[in-house]
Amino acid sequence: MIYGRGSFNQVDEIIAPHRKSMNPMVFFVDYFFEGKPLASGVPLRSNDKIIFADVTHEPKTTYVDLLANQLKDEFGIISGVVGIGGGATMDLAKAVSLMMTNPGSSADYQGWDLVKFPGVYKVGIPTLSGTGAEVSRTTVLTGPTRKLGMNSDFTPFDQIVLDPALTKNAPSNQRFYTGMDCYIHCIESLQGTYLNEFSKSYGEKALQLCQEIYVDKNGWDDDCDDKLMMASYAGGMSIAYSQVGVAHAVSYGLAFLLGTKHGIGNCIVFDKLEEYYPAAVKEFKYMVEKNNIEIPQGICRGLSDEDFNKMIDVSLGMKPLWENALGKDWESIITREKLRALYERL
Amino acid sequence: MIYGRGSFNQVDEIIAPHRKSMNPMVFFVDYFFEGKPLASGVPLRSNDKIIFADVTHEPKTTYVDLLANQLKDEFGIISGVVGIGGGATMDLAKAVSLMMTNPGSSADYQGWDLVKFPGVYKVGIPTLSGTGAEVSRTTVLTGPTRKLGMNSDFTPFDQIVLDPALTKNAPSNQRFYTGMDCYIHCIESLQGTYLNEFSKSYGEKALQLCQEIYVDKNGWDDDCDDKLMMASYAGGMSIAYSQVGVAHAVSYGLAFLLGTKHGIGNCIVFDKLEEYYPAAVKEFKYMVEKNNIEIPQGICRGLSDEDFNKMIDVSLGMKPLWENALGKDWESIITREKLRALYERL
Repeated sequence: MIYGRGSFNQVDEIIAPHRKSMNPMVFFVDYFFEGKPLASGVPLRSNDKIIFADVTHEPKTTYVDLLANQLKDEFGIISGVVGIGGGATMDLAKAVSLMMTNPGSSADYQGWDLVKFPGVYKVGIPTLSGTGAEVSRTTVLTGPTRKLGMNSDFTPFDQIVLDPALTKNAPSNQRFYTGMDCYIHCIESLQGTYLNEFSKSYGEKALQLCQEIYVDKNGWDDDCDDKLMMASYAGGMSIAYSQVGVAHAVSYGLAFLLGTKHGIGNCIVFDKLEEYYPAAVKEFKYMVEKNNIEIPQGICRGLSDEDFNKMIDVSLGMKPLWENALGKDWESIITREKLRALYERL
Repeated sequence: MIYGRGSFNQVDEIIAPHRKSMNPMVFFVDYFFEGKPLASGVPLRSNDKIIFADVTHEPKTTYVDLLANQLKDEFGIISGVVGIGGGATMDLAKAVSLMMTNPGSSADYQGWDLVKFPGVYKVGIPTLSGTGAEVSRTTVLTGPTRKLGMNSDFTPFDQIVLDPALTKNAPSNQRFYTGMDCYIHCIESLQGTYLNEFSKSYGEKALQLCQEIYVDKNGWDDDCDDKLMMASYAGGMSIAYSQVGVAHAVSYGLAFLLGTKHGIGNCIVFDKLEEYYPAAVKEFKYMVEKNNIEIPQGICRGLSDEDFNKMIDVSLGMKPLWENALGKDWESIITREKLRALYERL
């Protein structure tokens, strides 16, 4: 990993040894940057390709398969992929890398340790901090029957470049939701049953950085960008050895049914989790108020029984998350009725 | 990296994919473990070799060259090296790995970015926490004219296995000196001019862990082993992006002339650095007292002018350390006379 302001300028040099003869590097860039200076700084060489990733919605398995198949048709083999953007773009890059070498559909690999072969060389360059997608061993995808990542030892990036200057002009709402994703990771990791000293050290540090940014500071400056990028990294490292918890398990249901994006979805859920994380939910509400953010309410109003059941199915499918949050007996604690009542409050 | 109690049992599985036909894995194990249970847990297969490393003294370039040449003569090519021990053993393993593929003597590569080729696959497994050798991009060696590491991007281990259970029965004096190596890394990094948010986050976390162990706790338990192993890792990560400072620069001179080992050498020097790190030296003295440690005094008594000059030469050769500690104008601050006076107080 590389960390530092201006390190984006080193990408050309960093990826050079990984170029294989005439096989191109493929850059997935968040379409937010199309026509912006960052896009013209992408170090394209010979037959390299830049793909502006449509992340209006979080990546679908069908989109991953489409991109991987197009690249196979066009080039056969590629040298690697570089994902430049937020969590969705980075997850897309990781997933396409894996699907360049693994047969079938990405939907076949949604789960834990199902991926069979290492993907092509992959580089992650976040332009938004908080998700931890730059270090995670998953790549969250919405598939035909579930929202679930390709969790595997082959999933993490081979290289990450953390340049806080790239996050400078992120929209402040989006930045808050994504920052809270990190905050929530830390709470879920630190209060989970999977915790060990590795996760604890990283989780505590990331949490402290989030608090410095969102609780202590007044206003946003470069130092906040520096700190949030480290917080995102450390929060991601923390959950690499533990797991997330209730907020993530519940928000996956929202995302699957309603397409609610990950950052805002976690905020919507966490706002109602006093029962599970009382002190942190209180602090969260303070940060929301201090930073003038509005958390959407009533988003499950008018949903049908079938809808609720679908969300409950997706959510209860996240077994490791529930076990981390509530212990081995989680199934007796979070019943379908209890989860339905929680969804109804969102 | 792998972190966790019992993870040593996974080493066989971890290294399996890196075995190349009949080329052996070579295990360097601190000779302290010869005949002990840990040694019989080393996962030897077919023509693998175990070498009990003599770390009475810190590794010399001549010893590295001898080992690498013997391995080349015996096997031609090896699959990799695994270093199991304290900082000296891990540094030895890293250096031998590099010398399996780089021509000439390891003394040719003492310095910054002189190593030309990646070494063979290398794994680090610490049995003593604090040095940060498990993550550093150096491998400290005593050569014919200097004590200086092979600092390069090829130097870090490909894999580290952090199993706090392995540090359980370390001698308490040794454990203190090595733990203080970590503490001193953090102080030197955090108060250095090279600091960025990456180094700061890791340095602060490692420092806090050291304080929990040596200032807050009364007595040693498994939790201390867990924490110190994370502190060592985080302290090493911190200096990966910054540098160490005065204590290290001065103690390298002691090591070169008197063979003073790294951990105790740093303690001897840090004890006298009120001028540079006042608050930390005060806390250090408290930890020394609380943990019933005796710091040797008067070790430079009776040395000749020539001896002092040799130490001063070695120490002032560590330019990046001095620059990190004292800024760009360090040469006008730490004169030969001033450094001599400091050595005379040790």
